[in-house]
Amino acid sequence: MSNCAINLIDKLALIHQHWSPRVVAEMNDIQFKLVKLEGDFVWHRHEDTDEVFLVVQGEMQIGFRDREVTIRQGEMFVVPKGVEHITRAASECHALIVEPRGVVNTGDTVGELTASNDVWI
Amino acid sequence: MSNCAINLIDKLALIHQHWSPRVVAEMNDIQFKLVKLEGDFVWHRHEDTDEVFLVVQGEMQIGFRDREVTIRQGEMFVVPKGVEHITRAASECHALIVEPRGVVNTGDTVGELTASNDVWI
Repeated sequence: MSNCAINLIDKLALIHQHWSPRVVAEMNDIQFKLVKLEGDFVWHRHEDTDEVFLVVQGEMQIGFRDREVTIRQGEMFVVPKGVEHITRAASECHALIVEPRGVVNTGDTVGELTASNDVWI
Repeated sequence: MSNCAINLIDKLALIHQHWSPRVVAEMNDIQFKLVKLEGDFVWHRHEDTDEVFLVVQGEMQIGFRDREVTIRQGEMFVVPKGVEHITRAASECHALIVEPRGVVNTGDTVGELTASNDVWI
């Protein structure tokens, strides 16, 4: 067990790439990952799990085929499993993702934005 | 699926009791609960699960038998399963708890601070 808390802002300062989630904590089999978003991601879905986004700084959108949701600093959203979505941020946004260990960032749409998984900072 | 994000500050404004976690979201079987802490809680443990605290406002301590950890705004901490702990806040602190559905706030120490479980706001 660690002697100190995990400071999200300090951890975010260690991330220099967009769309590359970095793990900062684990609770049972659930991982807490920080990510910096800018621009448009890719349409994808996670067949086996819901996915949580909590915005630490800035503002992001999650697009669905029938709507778009804006998440601002201090807000969170649960993307239900199996639902196709795309994340977007007009300017850089910092978010905490909560999802089970092993979830790939691009879900079923593997491509150039698919990040290495399970990378801790 | 909701049309809008969950604003943690707005949800916290609906809580008028200390030590009474209120569920604001679920991801698979994991619940996200907001809580207002002030004073000393009770020593307890959760035999079957880790537990995450993320401080939204203020500052709290988690006491263990061999150390104490301070968690400030924007910081998080994972209490490992089975480890005895007590939460404390010298002045009111607002935190997000992440843990599986069904976890009782006082763990193995049922008493007057044991809150109703699975209450949503």
